Amino acid sequence: MMHPAQTRIGASFATQTMMRTIGAEITALADGRCEITAPLLPEMGQQHGAGHAGVTFALGDTAAGYAALTLMEPGREVMTAEMKINLLAPAVGVRLIASGRVVKAGRRLVVVTAEVEAEAADGARRLIAVLQGTMVPVDPA
Amino acid sequence: MMHPAQTRIGASFATQTMMRTIGAEITALADGRCEITAPLLPEMGQQHGAGHAGVTFALGDTAAGYAALTLMEPGREVMTAEMKINLLAPAVGVRLIASGRVVKAGRRLVVVTAEVEAEAADGARRLIAVLQGTMVPVDPA
Amino acid sequence: MMHPAQTRIGASFATQTMMRTIGAEITALADGRCEITAPLLPEMGQQHGAGHAGVTFALGDTAAGYAALTLMEPGREVMTAEMKINLLAPAVGVRLIASGRVVKAGRRLVVVTAEVEAEAADGARRLIAVLQGTMVPVDPA
Amino acid sequence: MMHPAQTRIGASFATQTMMRTIGAEITALADGRCEITAPLLPEMGQQHGAGHAGVTFALGDTAAGYAALTLMEPGREVMTAEMKINLLAPAVGVRLIASGRVVKAGRRLVVVTAEVEAEAADGARRLIAVLQGTMVPVDPA
Repeated sequence: MMHPAQTRIGASFATQTMMRTIGAEITALADGRCEITAPLLPEMGQQHGAGHAGVTFALGDTAAGYAALTLMEPGREVMTAEMKINLLAPAVGVRLIASGRVVKAGRRLVVVTAEVEAEAADGARRLIAVLQGTMVPVDPA
Repeated sequence: MMHPAQTRIGASFATQTMMRTIGAEITALADGRCEITAPLLPEMGQQHGAGHAGVTFALGDTAAGYAALTLMEPGREVMTAEMKINLLAPAVGVRLIASGRVVKAGRRLVVVTAEVEAEAADGARRLIAVLQGTMVPVDPA
Repeated sequence: MMHPAQTRIGASFATQTMMRTIGAEITALADGRCEITAPLLPEMGQQHGAGHAGVTFALGDTAAGYAALTLMEPGREVMTAEMKINLLAPAVGVRLIASGRVVKAGRRLVVVTAEVEAEAADGARRLIAVLQGTMVPVDPA
Repeated sequence: MMHPAQTRIGASFATQTMMRTIGAEITALADGRCEITAPLLPEMGQQHGAGHAGVTFALGDTAAGYAALTLMEPGREVMTAEMKINLLAPAVGVRLIASGRVVKAGRRLVVVTAEVEAEAADGARRLIAVLQGTMVPVDPA
């Protein structure tokens, strides 16, 4: 069954050209939760051939943002005010799965966390990053 | 005049496929400092057409990492352990300039900061993000 | 039943004069986990009479540190390298309960999180802060 | 010469019982800047006798908060939304000096940084911590 916010979140996600460039898709959506999956692309690597921390960050941050947006009224949007990432292991494997979660949805600030896992070819998953940050509800321009 | 670490840092940077994909270049290097410049590409946007926070993060993080590497002995490398970003304004304009700086170079941890500015077509610059984090010196694989 | 690290962690905790000053006690200990409880003291307030963020931080940070220490060999210690706190609600009530947890115990870095709850006189608990950070194993001086 | 906000900031600071307990004083105030100085008290130590990170955090956070308040209209207040600290060296010496600075004062969020130095008996200062975080302007209760 679809989440009530799925259509508007899908529409917003589709306008994020970076998400398209890195091949990311929203793979799960629930109240206060969003999962985004993306392949580990060779053109998005760091100096040892693993995925760049910028991609891991982008996926975790975006998953956290849409997790927050599931709790907003239609027509509102969120912006990242700040985000912190701890990198636990290199981004190696076939794909990354970022799971965003709302810790507290306040009127002015939404505190979020996200986890990013790397999935190997055999399906084994490893936690590679944890994020914690703040989203700010905004009125669209 | 070239910085002594310029050749090895340039070689490392050249292997970062994400930096190539986003058109980034190292534009300044000094002891404990590194500046990276990249165009704001339409394929790296967020939902309002501004540059994605993942790109701003990637540039700040990479500038901070190479700032740390200027202080390392040849043959050593650094990995990001953790990084925090506060986003101050949307990434709009023609290019982004990330300036990384070492706050303290310890034997086991290097504390770094970075600033990211957006440059408009008329050359005006605006601070859009500040980062603070930790690099870990590692022996190459 | 006692955790194997309880005696050495209790001894270390007893030397933390700030923990004594704020009336803090270790109230639970398990592998990768530590809970610390402290009363909300009137002499540790901020400008509106709630508990100061410095106390909330100190409890979360210390709980996270001892959570890490449960996984270390006897004789080792940990220091906080960095810690991030998001404050969700004022520290009001009769006591604070900080729960630290190890996310990943590496050889050189231990990534940790903590939650801090405030407990009201009627026993109701409210999440007031979440922390995420890095502990570094060190050899004692 | 006094800063225009000195009286109201001094009045607010005087109500922070934790600042009184740790012997802290505001030692400088300017637009977007605040310095707080406190002795290193034996009852506020960690397990090796150095000052507890909770005190270093409290001083940096409070200096950053009042730096933000210098830019607010009379009658407004600020709360810490989130704060990140990197600890560079142990808090040893005779006193700590925390210097808060506003990076960007927005209408809804104020991004701040702070540095904390430890001063030895001979007056030598050492940078022991850097902080970066977000203050939120609030209307007093």
